[in-house]
Amino acid sequence: MSIKITGSGSYIPTEVIANIDFAQHEFKHEDGSSLPHSNEVISRKFLDITGIKERRYVNNGLETSDIATIAAKIAIADADIDPESLDYIIFAHNFGNVTHKKLQTDTLPSLASRVKHDLKIKNPNCVAYDILFGCPGWIEGVIQAQAFIKAGMAKKCLVIGAETLSRVVDKFDRDSMIYSDGAGATVIEQTDSSEDGILAHKTATFTYEEAYYLYFGPSYNKEVNQDERYIKMEGRKIYEFALTNVPAAMKQCLDISGIPIEKIKKVLIHQANEKMDEAIIKRFYQLYNSTVPSDIMPMTIHKLGNSSVATVPTLYDLLIRGKIENQSIKKGDYLLFASVGSGMNINAFVYQM
Amino acid sequence: MSIKITGSGSYIPTEVIANIDFAQHEFKHEDGSSLPHSNEVISRKFLDITGIKERRYVNNGLETSDIATIAAKIAIADADIDPESLDYIIFAHNFGNVTHKKLQTDTLPSLASRVKHDLKIKNPNCVAYDILFGCPGWIEGVIQAQAFIKAGMAKKCLVIGAETLSRVVDKFDRDSMIYSDGAGATVIEQTDSSEDGILAHKTATFTYEEAYYLYFGPSYNKEVNQDERYIKMEGRKIYEFALTNVPAAMKQCLDISGIPIEKIKKVLIHQANEKMDEAIIKRFYQLYNSTVPSDIMPMTIHKLGNSSVATVPTLYDLLIRGKIENQSIKKGDYLLFASVGSGMNINAFVYQM
Repeated sequence: MSIKITGSGSYIPTEVIANIDFAQHEFKHEDGSSLPHSNEVISRKFLDITGIKERRYVNNGLETSDIATIAAKIAIADADIDPESLDYIIFAHNFGNVTHKKLQTDTLPSLASRVKHDLKIKNPNCVAYDILFGCPGWIEGVIQAQAFIKAGMAKKCLVIGAETLSRVVDKFDRDSMIYSDGAGATVIEQTDSSEDGILAHKTATFTYEEAYYLYFGPSYNKEVNQDERYIKMEGRKIYEFALTNVPAAMKQCLDISGIPIEKIKKVLIHQANEKMDEAIIKRFYQLYNSTVPSDIMPMTIHKLGNSSVATVPTLYDLLIRGKIENQSIKKGDYLLFASVGSGMNINAFVYQM
Repeated sequence: MSIKITGSGSYIPTEVIANIDFAQHEFKHEDGSSLPHSNEVISRKFLDITGIKERRYVNNGLETSDIATIAAKIAIADADIDPESLDYIIFAHNFGNVTHKKLQTDTLPSLASRVKHDLKIKNPNCVAYDILFGCPGWIEGVIQAQAFIKAGMAKKCLVIGAETLSRVVDKFDRDSMIYSDGAGATVIEQTDSSEDGILAHKTATFTYEEAYYLYFGPSYNKEVNQDERYIKMEGRKIYEFALTNVPAAMKQCLDISGIPIEKIKKVLIHQANEKMDEAIIKRFYQLYNSTVPSDIMPMTIHKLGNSSVATVPTLYDLLIRGKIENQSIKKGDYLLFASVGSGMNINAFVYQM
């Protein structure tokens, strides 16, 4: 038995938001004071660090579960399975459905239940639940699907990562430029193949010092109702945390798999920040006394920004469809998936196509 | 190997809210019209149907993750394990942390990460995540813990169900009288015992017609900002749904276990509504051409109301501690756990003490 991704889909939101679209924003520090630089300088530095030129937002009529359903339909069609045969729908998100211009999160019913409803699945044995695990939620959903299959509780699982971060950003916070919307979905199946699929996985949760590096906090504009809260992060601490712990977790995962690093064809890493991802991958290869091979790390951040749980399944989806320039994968290739995000959580899995 | 509950804890909130405390509420229909009866009549009918005389609310300074941590500490002490040895913290809730008099849900970071932080656990291999699965979330967390143990991914899991529904009720809705706050936590461990522990489980998700039987909706008082949303339910539909599907799922679960119904010592069912629970258990026994044994179903709803994910672990905790009048369990006893709630989800497991 092997556990494989047999279908993939994603939804790329239609509203293109360029860096220039933030030109009129009044960016502030946490203490409410204005940033000392012009938005032009801020934007240039932002691009240098994050690599983000533009990002995508959903149109006003769509919510997280809507775009998840679109991605799910594509994944189910790609896997060529009857949706009624799914044993699980595992939906990773962090903020539920947030309607345009509203503050409240709606998680009643769970987004997984909404997707199952929208897919018109009748089979009650298809169990639908949501997982909250920060940006690494989709990878963790895959790891949970693998657990259910190994435990004999499932054969086919739909794992979704979707988020509309554009609805939870503080527009007075420069970090709002990082976040975007998106949805990715994959079908994970037990197959008869004996060698490929998921070969190893690793998950870690750091909370002792790190729990609140990403948190829900008030607007940096003190004139905005300070009871209203938005996604906030301690960027510098996260950067240092990720550089220390993500390469180590990736190495632990790879070593469990027994696959030599030279055989890894692509590393599919959470699209958080280009400079951070490059530093992580550099340090990861250093742990093996190696240098980073060219084209090892396909990136979507330049055009899609950081859509949290959606980045990794979207990256995989675009990659297998040949939609990332100068990047391709084929049967037999070894991939390393990895993510880091709020919690603080880190996870990874080694996968053979 | 068997998979057992080795530790248990609960937190009973300190604010006692009696039915009389709702006497000044202006209850309305969904269309905004006032209920035709006096609050005295409403209260009497409410008591007849639900069995709820009083319920508990947390004091204003506490949030869901706070009371979860209290319950978790008791469960860990009861299991007599080093918290650093936990492989998972699985936290079932549906609304995140909601601060007193605030509308927004806070799930950043996940509540499981907050509890891990508050427990001062340093071990990064203790994976902390949240599951949203309606009222059956705690039972589903136990089933997931079991999956991780069976898959060789864990030996010890802390499974928490906690909620502060008092923060998400519409006080103009009579159904607000049902809901309460609470937290229950259990340690689930792989043990060397060969026969007891979790013997069978069953989960079902019904969404085709049922997905929105419990939903997030505006106040019944049209003068309240209709953008603000609260927990809402279609009580009649839920009642009929539960009566049809919960006994069937319980029977499926029991039949998988192979345990004859005569051997079941106690049924620990979600404390949703006393009349509904009684009707469910009656129909369950009818499926075996049996009548309901006396004292089979310990109840806490009279004093504690419906605290969603917290009812079942709290019920178990009070039962093993001998805190439910005329109710006790001992080593070797067979228990049937069952729940039903938003999603719509139903689940059950058969357990030998």
